[in-house]
Amino acid sequence: MKTLKIPEATIIRLSVYSRYLYMADKRGIVTISSGDIADGVGVSPAQVRKDLAYFGEFGTRGVGYNVKDLHRHILKILGLSSIWHVALVGLGNLGLALSSYKGFRERGFCICSIFDTDPAKVGTTVNEVVVEHIDRLEVVVNARGAQIGIIAVPAGFAQQVADRLIKAGVKAILNFAPVVLNVPPEIELRNVDLAVHLEVLTFNLALQK
Amino acid sequence: MKTLKIPEATIIRLSVYSRYLYMADKRGIVTISSGDIADGVGVSPAQVRKDLAYFGEFGTRGVGYNVKDLHRHILKILGLSSIWHVALVGLGNLGLALSSYKGFRERGFCICSIFDTDPAKVGTTVNEVVVEHIDRLEVVVNARGAQIGIIAVPAGFAQQVADRLIKAGVKAILNFAPVVLNVPPEIELRNVDLAVHLEVLTFNLALQK
Repeated sequence: MKTLKIPEATIIRLSVYSRYLYMADKRGIVTISSGDIADGVGVSPAQVRKDLAYFGEFGTRGVGYNVKDLHRHILKILGLSSIWHVALVGLGNLGLALSSYKGFRERGFCICSIFDTDPAKVGTTVNEVVVEHIDRLEVVVNARGAQIGIIAVPAGFAQQVADRLIKAGVKAILNFAPVVLNVPPEIELRNVDLAVHLEVLTFNLALQK
Repeated sequence: MKTLKIPEATIIRLSVYSRYLYMADKRGIVTISSGDIADGVGVSPAQVRKDLAYFGEFGTRGVGYNVKDLHRHILKILGLSSIWHVALVGLGNLGLALSSYKGFRERGFCICSIFDTDPAKVGTTVNEVVVEHIDRLEVVVNARGAQIGIIAVPAGFAQQVADRLIKAGVKAILNFAPVVLNVPPEIELRNVDLAVHLEVLTFNLALQK
């Protein structure tokens, strides 16, 4: 059912739909229309139907979608029907914020390994996870089978951390360091640039001028 | 030259192109093709041309784009040819990380006002900005003319902070709290959900299984 040519914008919207469905389910709603979902998340009903159509037929015409079924289906599409083990490298302000970010655990991401070089941090516990020295990165990541690495170290260290994570068996990297990383083509890499979010806002503000 | 129907994905790519052009300019490159930009940022040349075509004709056929001109043009499109005054509310781990995020200042965003309720934080200086008590939010934001607010408070306080920012004159809000905010239609609102980035990765990892 999955095809490889799904636009990233669709995946991001699926992620948003699934949160909306989760809340609808919690409020006891059983069936929902594409129009309801569209209103709830701020896109057009046609966009909702188009996004879902990539993955086959879900709804019943005139009735809508079963909330629980659709939610479960989207989680499966997003690869969220199992727990993902995430290794976080770098426990500065951003690393601390990420390690305590409730949204990760709710969505099945467990930051089960945390690494830093600061002797004041190594050995302490953050959200029930003992902080390890970065020297132990390969051993720990490999032994625990972490699939995803989050890089929250200064830019100058990001590439070597990426190399070490990949060597230790990580298949995907989320990079918060403001630097372009080189990784083999089979590794999934995503760079997070928080300034982009502000720029979408200023683009719209500039339009209003 | 600007039209209102620009897809958000295009705006995000423009932001990425502008970073690439900035680096190309620093390396002394004078002209660049859509293929070079495409290779550099990982999209197709046709996509680059299509994105830029929304805003008129930039390049010269067979010659390419002048790096400096195109960079300046994109910054102007993104509303980045002037400094934006940003007010940050909430100085937890995420707020601290955001307040020291170099990428903001580089792109013309000045976090010139910071608010918190913690007596241990109020009055201290973070990156040369004195932390104000949140009681002074309206007075300070209004007096300084902050145009953008960043909400980095716990979910339960986000709506009231949004209301107060808007009353104080803010035109756009970047919300990091995991809650849906209600704002008037004329206010630009963007929610940042960091888990979405992980979900794009797991979608791709799940495809490989």
